[in-house]
Amino acid sequence: MAETALNRARIAVDAMGGDYAPNEIIAGSMRASEELDVEVLLVGDSERIEAYFQHHPRPKNLTIVHAEEVVAMDEEPITAIRRKPAASINVAMDLVKQNRADAVVAAGHSGAAMAAALLRLGRLKGIDRPAIGAVLPTMLAGKSVIILDVGANVDCKPKYLEQFALMGTIYSKYVMGVEDPKVGLLNIGEEPSKGDDLALKTYELLENNQQIPFIGNAEGRDVLSGQFDVIVCDGFVGNVLLKFAEAVGGVILQILKEELPRGIQGKVGTALIKPNLKQIKQRMDHAEHGGALLFGVDGVCVISHGSSQAPSIFNAIRQAKNAVDNRVSERIQAYNDHHHQLKELSVNGED
Amino acid sequence: MAETALNRARIAVDAMGGDYAPNEIIAGSMRASEELDVEVLLVGDSERIEAYFQHHPRPKNLTIVHAEEVVAMDEEPITAIRRKPAASINVAMDLVKQNRADAVVAAGHSGAAMAAALLRLGRLKGIDRPAIGAVLPTMLAGKSVIILDVGANVDCKPKYLEQFALMGTIYSKYVMGVEDPKVGLLNIGEEPSKGDDLALKTYELLENNQQIPFIGNAEGRDVLSGQFDVIVCDGFVGNVLLKFAEAVGGVILQILKEELPRGIQGKVGTALIKPNLKQIKQRMDHAEHGGALLFGVDGVCVISHGSSQAPSIFNAIRQAKNAVDNRVSERIQAYNDHHHQLKELSVNGED
Repeated sequence: MAETALNRARIAVDAMGGDYAPNEIIAGSMRASEELDVEVLLVGDSERIEAYFQHHPRPKNLTIVHAEEVVAMDEEPITAIRRKPAASINVAMDLVKQNRADAVVAAGHSGAAMAAALLRLGRLKGIDRPAIGAVLPTMLAGKSVIILDVGANVDCKPKYLEQFALMGTIYSKYVMGVEDPKVGLLNIGEEPSKGDDLALKTYELLENNQQIPFIGNAEGRDVLSGQFDVIVCDGFVGNVLLKFAEAVGGVILQILKEELPRGIQGKVGTALIKPNLKQIKQRMDHAEHGGALLFGVDGVCVISHGSSQAPSIFNAIRQAKNAVDNRVSERIQAYNDHHHQLKELSVNGED
Repeated sequence: MAETALNRARIAVDAMGGDYAPNEIIAGSMRASEELDVEVLLVGDSERIEAYFQHHPRPKNLTIVHAEEVVAMDEEPITAIRRKPAASINVAMDLVKQNRADAVVAAGHSGAAMAAALLRLGRLKGIDRPAIGAVLPTMLAGKSVIILDVGANVDCKPKYLEQFALMGTIYSKYVMGVEDPKVGLLNIGEEPSKGDDLALKTYELLENNQQIPFIGNAEGRDVLSGQFDVIVCDGFVGNVLLKFAEAVGGVILQILKEELPRGIQGKVGTALIKPNLKQIKQRMDHAEHGGALLFGVDGVCVISHGSSQAPSIFNAIRQAKNAVDNRVSERIQAYNDHHHQLKELSVNGED
């Protein structure tokens, strides 16, 4: 069902965000311009960006858009976004608002990116709360799971989770290419009767929504099983889970590093399996799985990790391009229009 | 500060719970009777238990207590506990109630164990809600972290979490032997201003309680860092996190199994590091870290995994013995009496 884009996806990249800005962001954008069918708009301090291009030829499909200011990691997001209209993240969002770009890629301060998206682009009609969705690898090679929300909303209502489920389904189907996505509700037991008040009420909504391929509760142990393509939860649990999951890979690599080379036999063995260990690291690495997607705002926004280097930025741009090419926002909007009509019909007596 | 027990700890073990009952439970109890200074009371179908001892000599400090019934894994806990007074888990709790035992060890149905403990033993004075605490290994070899609650309470109030923090501190100090335990609140950011309503209010309580060595918020990424000895959270988040953590070890071992022996070099290398891999598995294995402890009921209860085999049961008995020998319940009670007095004083005008 992949659609052919009439126009190349135009991706505005905030060159100034994240721990390795601007050089690694520029390097990742360069690679994307060369390897993908996209237009990249690199937003930030034009002097610093141009300095980079004195040593590297600038691709034709990469242009520089100047932004006077930057939101720093330690700034309170909403205040900073309001006080600095010329900050790179604001300028990038404005490019989408003005239809000069189709998507924004930003690394680092996810709170600032979210605030800028909300204030500049607004929400999609029918979506009460935007959500941050993260893609994790699963036990099954090549199969990922989208978890949302992972931090945008700490106190959720059941209908927000229903909306998250819908947005996740559309993303899974049209961007990840899962023909028949399976949606789960993060919970503390398999049975419909399990969980807190939010889980119980959400279960009912999901079960009764024909548009959502809901297959039941997902426990903590099921998250990485590959059994689910989309898992919904409130942003508190999702954030704790995501940060735990990101860290646990590092913890285990650390244990491997300590324990594997013990003894002479261990040292020789470890040397022999080094290339395979690298492969494992890659399979667990979140850089390979792209950034987090901001769902429910009126435009595509991919938020990459603060520690993003060129490969993560490249992947984030590819992810943004896929979301644009497959018209994720339009599909969510279309569903909501349809759903709204159904509701109105039902309110008018036709159940 | 370890106390010398005047009497041997008497541990009632539910022989009929878990996937490998009764034989693995009996085997673990045997080993505990032989290696630890304890009295074991094996509770269950005496005919089946005695059949086991026709092939193994029964240690003197292991006695059999007959129980007519069993609570099955698929039974609704509270109903089953009420309808089957002669179920092994109820009989085991009664032994503590009648002061014929000091602690209960049960594998499997944690809901049933909790219901039985609550109905038969009741809560400690000053504790509003019992909590299940789980011990996880951390990145630092030999250092563990206790997380509570991991499933007993899905909707928590700030004062419950304050009580969890206190109970965890006592356990960490007197049972795990951590001289100077550090307590964290599971949250989505480091700053005190982060989190949902529960987190914000709990932060304030913890910060103002002089008895709790609170050092701040713990994010998902900090859980296994070894920086915290006790982490408190509501039972919903804790349960999701625990089940995820238990599963992730298996997921990674699976990936190692698939990726390490690739190619001839990989096969040779993997063969060489096999003993070290076993060591790693052990370090991550929850069986090594004993069972979950039920905090806040009037008696010591250790709940072991449903998949527990002899080594887990042995560790759970050792853990129960440690809790008994170090008078965890009395210490919690003593703190609460003291705290209650302080509060009364403050209510009476002396702040």
